[in-house]
Amino acid sequence: MKVGFIGTGTMGQPMVNNLLKKGFAVVGYDVAPAALEAALRLGAAPAGSAAEAAKQGDLVITMLPSSAHVESAYLGPGGVLEGVARGRICVDMSTIDPGTSRRVAARLRERGVRFLDAPVSGAVPRAVEGTLTIMVGGDARDLEEARPALAAMGTNVIHVGDVGAGEVAKLCNNLIAGVAMVAVSEAFRIAEGFGVDPKILTQVISKSSGSTWVMEHGHPVPGIVEKAASSRDYAPGFMTDLMAKDLGLAVNAARELRIPVAVAPAAQQLLRLASSHGFGRKDFSSVYRFLEPSSREAPV
Amino acid sequence: MKVGFIGTGTMGQPMVNNLLKKGFAVVGYDVAPAALEAALRLGAAPAGSAAEAAKQGDLVITMLPSSAHVESAYLGPGGVLEGVARGRICVDMSTIDPGTSRRVAARLRERGVRFLDAPVSGAVPRAVEGTLTIMVGGDARDLEEARPALAAMGTNVIHVGDVGAGEVAKLCNNLIAGVAMVAVSEAFRIAEGFGVDPKILTQVISKSSGSTWVMEHGHPVPGIVEKAASSRDYAPGFMTDLMAKDLGLAVNAARELRIPVAVAPAAQQLLRLASSHGFGRKDFSSVYRFLEPSSREAPV
Amino acid sequence: MKVGFIGTGTMGQPMVNNLLKKGFAVVGYDVAPAALEAALRLGAAPAGSAAEAAKQGDLVITMLPSSAHVESAYLGPGGVLEGVARGRICVDMSTIDPGTSRRVAARLRERGVRFLDAPVSGAVPRAVEGTLTIMVGGDARDLEEARPALAAMGTNVIHVGDVGAGEVAKLCNNLIAGVAMVAVSEAFRIAEGFGVDPKILTQVISKSSGSTWVMEHGHPVPGIVEKAASSRDYAPGFMTDLMAKDLGLAVNAARELRIPVAVAPAAQQLLRLASSHGFGRKDFSSVYRFLEPSSREAPV
Amino acid sequence: MKVGFIGTGTMGQPMVNNLLKKGFAVVGYDVAPAALEAALRLGAAPAGSAAEAAKQGDLVITMLPSSAHVESAYLGPGGVLEGVARGRICVDMSTIDPGTSRRVAARLRERGVRFLDAPVSGAVPRAVEGTLTIMVGGDARDLEEARPALAAMGTNVIHVGDVGAGEVAKLCNNLIAGVAMVAVSEAFRIAEGFGVDPKILTQVISKSSGSTWVMEHGHPVPGIVEKAASSRDYAPGFMTDLMAKDLGLAVNAARELRIPVAVAPAAQQLLRLASSHGFGRKDFSSVYRFLEPSSREAPV
Repeated sequence: MKVGFIGTGTMGQPMVNNLLKKGFAVVGYDVAPAALEAALRLGAAPAGSAAEAAKQGDLVITMLPSSAHVESAYLGPGGVLEGVARGRICVDMSTIDPGTSRRVAARLRERGVRFLDAPVSGAVPRAVEGTLTIMVGGDARDLEEARPALAAMGTNVIHVGDVGAGEVAKLCNNLIAGVAMVAVSEAFRIAEGFGVDPKILTQVISKSSGSTWVMEHGHPVPGIVEKAASSRDYAPGFMTDLMAKDLGLAVNAARELRIPVAVAPAAQQLLRLASSHGFGRKDFSSVYRFLEPSSREAPV
Repeated sequence: MKVGFIGTGTMGQPMVNNLLKKGFAVVGYDVAPAALEAALRLGAAPAGSAAEAAKQGDLVITMLPSSAHVESAYLGPGGVLEGVARGRICVDMSTIDPGTSRRVAARLRERGVRFLDAPVSGAVPRAVEGTLTIMVGGDARDLEEARPALAAMGTNVIHVGDVGAGEVAKLCNNLIAGVAMVAVSEAFRIAEGFGVDPKILTQVISKSSGSTWVMEHGHPVPGIVEKAASSRDYAPGFMTDLMAKDLGLAVNAARELRIPVAVAPAAQQLLRLASSHGFGRKDFSSVYRFLEPSSREAPV
Repeated sequence: MKVGFIGTGTMGQPMVNNLLKKGFAVVGYDVAPAALEAALRLGAAPAGSAAEAAKQGDLVITMLPSSAHVESAYLGPGGVLEGVARGRICVDMSTIDPGTSRRVAARLRERGVRFLDAPVSGAVPRAVEGTLTIMVGGDARDLEEARPALAAMGTNVIHVGDVGAGEVAKLCNNLIAGVAMVAVSEAFRIAEGFGVDPKILTQVISKSSGSTWVMEHGHPVPGIVEKAASSRDYAPGFMTDLMAKDLGLAVNAARELRIPVAVAPAAQQLLRLASSHGFGRKDFSSVYRFLEPSSREAPV
Repeated sequence: MKVGFIGTGTMGQPMVNNLLKKGFAVVGYDVAPAALEAALRLGAAPAGSAAEAAKQGDLVITMLPSSAHVESAYLGPGGVLEGVARGRICVDMSTIDPGTSRRVAARLRERGVRFLDAPVSGAVPRAVEGTLTIMVGGDARDLEEARPALAAMGTNVIHVGDVGAGEVAKLCNNLIAGVAMVAVSEAFRIAEGFGVDPKILTQVISKSSGSTWVMEHGHPVPGIVEKAASSRDYAPGFMTDLMAKDLGLAVNAARELRIPVAVAPAAQQLLRLASSHGFGRKDFSSVYRFLEPSSREAPV
């Protein structure tokens, strides 16, 4: 089986590699020549456009950085829509806004093409291992057809609902994780200000109503959770920039749905600010560092 | 052993009851006559002032609604400081700001009186059962002396650190829990807007980085977690008003420590607003209800 | 001179009326039949689509509720692009995001069609009077050509810069006005809590660094500024829903530009929440009402 | 007439100087020996404590950095209350929380001592010129008695209301000014992102609903308003740290009054964060600098 793989950047490359290792043929395309060359070195065949990659593939996979890229790669000149055959399945594994997923799916459907949104969690390390979690929106039978290829890249493939539901699940999860990380960071800064031992506080909270995955696995205070990014100088992990993007997508979805939200935009803007001040490519738990207290000289 | 118990309100009464049941004598005082009478009906003896209750008790326990009440009950006219004997231990179980705990402790220390701050979590239901979690700040040996009385009221007594550390732990835990509840509510409102099934989304998130205690045990969407307040029309549980108070104490502590915070004040103000609009005495998970979308007529 | 006018809703109708009164012929179109009929009663001729209105007009004017409507009216099936002749000028007077203005302008330019974005301020009352302020982005010579038609609808026509700059000016102005109104409301709620006379406070602030147009002309406390919406039970004026929309557009623009913002999203979400709770169609100064204090029973 | 002046720090010194120049005798006190010595060099006589300064003065003036300092200087050991004679007037010119003003006033009243709260605006430059604005709370007749001394330091002395009202007016004004400055900064960052000329935008907004004192006089973009701090590398003017403090006092007052607020805490926390990252002692308009966009590499 041949996969047309569009978007062979940092995340796409290890995914292509795993497809190849599991016996899939891959024809790759990327607007950036360097990214495409990296895929060719792994063993993919080249395509000159998204349309061409889509034409040659039995299945189309896209892995792109933003809603605008996805819209352009599917619907723009030289895009998937121009090359893909009726009846094929396209799987968009990008993290984008669910409204875009639905618009793209609708346009493909008009041409008899099926669409799944299938964003991933786990970032580069788990993309390399082939152990991504993949949240899928779309028809369950379409997912079954696409599952072998997805299983080459991830170990946890979950059907969430109709088209867009994969994106919704990812954004909602990341909204909570992003906000919770900021909350944990604020709490431990306050505790630190009072001289309370963060290890003991961690033990207390982990058995109480404040317990969260992010504290247990990604504790922002260095030296408490050994595997956490904070214990290796906040090397990601999951970058502040990516979390700021996902929170932004969630907040923008709320805007379009006329839903009032409060903590998601507060966390989004704080991470955006942290990004502006040098923490963008650190793990998002580095927001703890960014929340340093003012000088003791400052009036209160 | 006789306990001078000051503050026999809604939370204090079941605590007094458990002390009496475990064989402690209790001499009670409350500024509100009705609250004191309730304690007398349970079997406590009356005192005419905090000073008198403190004088008669081998141990002093206070359970009051705010920092100002605690300051007044200890240091004001007719307060504990006027009645308590040298060498005694005072245990303040109120949820107040840690700075006040430290100021009160310092004033007591000048007179040779020991102090523990020991706020509780679990609210009225667990106060009734005698299964509160009690977070204690102060000297570890003082805690050992006070432990039998605390054990009459709670099953989980944790020594967190020096004076104030009990309050810090409670506020930090509740900061995270309060913020996380708002985040979960925002996420599920967005999912709802996209028509995603909240049960499936709950399953996905519970295995991912967005997993939190509050979603697992206090899910704000009715019908998903059977024991959650949302499934009984948001009957508390832990009231919005109390969570707004605790978030406010945490944010104010951050202010005094010159620590920047972002999601805690956003959650605090949202709960305050929910309180102004009728959700104050509902469980704090009712913030989900408050976050209802605007009319579909509204321009976006 | 004949104007193809697309979007004959609440704002569009008085604008059409003023064009007709000043001697312009108008051929109107609206997706909503009722809106179109209203324009016909005023004396406009009907068109069966945006394309047809654009084809018949010497000048095209659009006045639509959202970015999506504008995109569709220009670029969708039956849209302006299908009917407009080379060399014509299109003036979009909607309040939408500047990025959309630029995308539409670029697509029109490919066909040799010129574009101005020209959002208005002043709302329905000034649309009726023909005294709108019109902020224009695009080529200055194109503006001179379109100026007679614009002058029929507004008295203050300002050239701000290139395409999109009209929208940017409007959103930036409304960002400040919207945030300032919330700030003024918060300040006067606090003053009220301390029993300070709002009239005296208004006098003090009006001569100090806190002076703002919104307090001087749209004071949110009833009875201080006679002409303010607050003094007629918050009848708009400028609706909460519209201010929430404009703040949302500004915040979304900041997101796409990677600019951190803090008070704009806080105001946006507060107005969104006010909208959800019944204040959407009131003047945006009614946010003062929405910020009512909690019950005095609530713990602090 | 002799003034007991307590708090001869950066602001207090020029105020003492103006009192001396206008013929008042001054007996000064400050907990910091260096601050006191500076006052002595100006011609003040020394006192060994606040009590002693109060005892010797016909009028007592305090100018201190925080609520805690004021409480201690009046009510603590060696404080004003120990030295001041019945019938005297104490004028506290510090910017503190109005609740503290009222508590101090009540304690003084028990001893027959009168109290005015009289915070100033104008910062060091206008303290030097003797042109401060002074907002006064307390009895109008007491103000008349104190007016000659106040007139030596400020040109605009306004009676706002009862005790605390001076502080309320100052905090409410600064709440609006602080929030508005952040809003203006956000708006101009967005405009900059779209390439709109800030001078033209300033002209547009200055005639529209977004007009504010802070844009007209303290424009955060360098080079637009010549006298603004932004045009001299953000040399204060009014420091970020002081605005963060005043916003914090306003937000804390709202908390104690159970008033929900949204933009004030958002601005407060942003300025606090700016302070933590090096902008604390710059003018508060430097928040514009702090709001710099993330790298264009960051995903959106």
